[in-house]
Amino acid sequence: MARRFEQVAILGVGLLGGSIGLRLKANAARAAVPLRIAGVGRRRESLVEARDVGAIDSMHLDALEVVGDCDLVILATPVGAFEPLLRQIRDRLSASTLVTDVGSTKARVVELADRLLGPGARFVASHPMAGSERKGPAHSRADLFDNALCILTPTPETPRDAIDDAEGLWRSLGMRTVQLAPREHDDALARVSHLPHALACLLMNLPARGELDLAATGFADMTRLAAGDPEMWRDIFLSNRKAMIEAVDGLTRSMSRFRALLDAADARGIEAFLESARDRKNAFSESRTSAAETGE
Amino acid sequence: MARRFEQVAILGVGLLGGSIGLRLKANAARAAVPLRIAGVGRRRESLVEARDVGAIDSMHLDALEVVGDCDLVILATPVGAFEPLLRQIRDRLSASTLVTDVGSTKARVVELADRLLGPGARFVASHPMAGSERKGPAHSRADLFDNALCILTPTPETPRDAIDDAEGLWRSLGMRTVQLAPREHDDALARVSHLPHALACLLMNLPARGELDLAATGFADMTRLAAGDPEMWRDIFLSNRKAMIEAVDGLTRSMSRFRALLDAADARGIEAFLESARDRKNAFSESRTSAAETGE
Repeated sequence: MARRFEQVAILGVGLLGGSIGLRLKANAARAAVPLRIAGVGRRRESLVEARDVGAIDSMHLDALEVVGDCDLVILATPVGAFEPLLRQIRDRLSASTLVTDVGSTKARVVELADRLLGPGARFVASHPMAGSERKGPAHSRADLFDNALCILTPTPETPRDAIDDAEGLWRSLGMRTVQLAPREHDDALARVSHLPHALACLLMNLPARGELDLAATGFADMTRLAAGDPEMWRDIFLSNRKAMIEAVDGLTRSMSRFRALLDAADARGIEAFLESARDRKNAFSESRTSAAETGE
Repeated sequence: MARRFEQVAILGVGLLGGSIGLRLKANAARAAVPLRIAGVGRRRESLVEARDVGAIDSMHLDALEVVGDCDLVILATPVGAFEPLLRQIRDRLSASTLVTDVGSTKARVVELADRLLGPGARFVASHPMAGSERKGPAHSRADLFDNALCILTPTPETPRDAIDDAEGLWRSLGMRTVQLAPREHDDALARVSHLPHALACLLMNLPARGELDLAATGFADMTRLAAGDPEMWRDIFLSNRKAMIEAVDGLTRSMSRFRALLDAADARGIEAFLESARDRKNAFSESRTSAAETGE
């Protein structure tokens, strides 16, 4: 049976923190069990918004006010704020408190937690893969995580029951869970998420201003991610620098092969390139459709 | 007043050719005026589909059967087929027949038409910017072109009344029209359409197969275009090779600057890059929204 949490601190009440709060409150109400959620944030306005939508019960500008009493602490700020936060709270955490996070990169987060909390601490690094271009707690949704994937990256030293508790937490939000090594997570995410985000921005900046009048739906879709939060993505890029650089180099190599096909006017080669991408895309779309249908 | 066409030949009855046919038939029915559309294709099945959805009246495997009697001929095949088609039909076209096309690249098409039909011919190169991942005449829609942009690229030699007739044609399909020099069109489209398409394919091919299980909505959106028709896009890339190579080089340069920011862990520089992309994206989205609202 999944561990039930009664006192939760959410550090950072943006869209993700707010949505976690909303869903935990909804779950507790349905089960008619007690739950108190303390929201911690830098800005009073965000805290008020999170409280007004019902995502948190109390508002705090200082994590030290609350973490000592909590059985669950969730880091939901941009990853760049994790180091000062962990430094601040580590001596206040009780031995049974589960600590987890929502960061989009994991190797650096795991390394930080090992260093600041100790390698056997009840910290389970997590990446719930849900979000939206909409920022802030006012856009929180209890169903934001439904059917989405949460990747957990425990280390060999992470206590087994802490991993179970973290898996139970994310599943109680409606998520599927999978475990990966932190480095494996970061390499994959660089290619399927972080580099695509950078490319949306690079593409957005490429055309001359007047040329944008000629852009159609394809361009709008390819640049959708460019509307994302600069601060959050700056932190993701920086904390996943090594894998990002490798992904950029990989794409540069394949772009250079594509350029050579253009340069040689190699019709067969260009068609083979387009066919392989189309076949991969169709297989990818089918696997997503069947995953959605089976709830897998 | 826009010229009314009574005998139309559509060479190539795919999604675009079929949708043009459907809309012209709907317009003629509403105005209660006569209109015959001859569909020309390589495959009998496509012709039957186009006839069954009501996009064409008659089916032909050979353009020579019909173009002599037509007051409007529309090239709607992949651009790679334009040269043999124009060679085949040029001696049968009557002096008053308007010829236009739906090709996504223009400099090479204009050069072809100049060479094969003569520089003062009633040929008006056009790029109706509408489409879908769905191929084939069965997916034709009379409203496919509504509010979309059609770029015309006449030359200084193109007869003024032929340009007017072509503008009237595309507007009668519900489109906005604009005129550009062929080279200007191709440079812009390389950056806002052709390179984004290639990137969707390059991104789709980048991750290892297992890594695709970790891909979320962002990756799905960034690779949507990879499902497009390889034959059509091969022709577009080849007929816009020069501008494509320039666009690839431009992106390679900006990727290399981005890589340098990562390499130096330049937080301010990365944030400035992300902010500029976000600001451009927001301005772009607003201009598209207000254009849709005013019908502009």
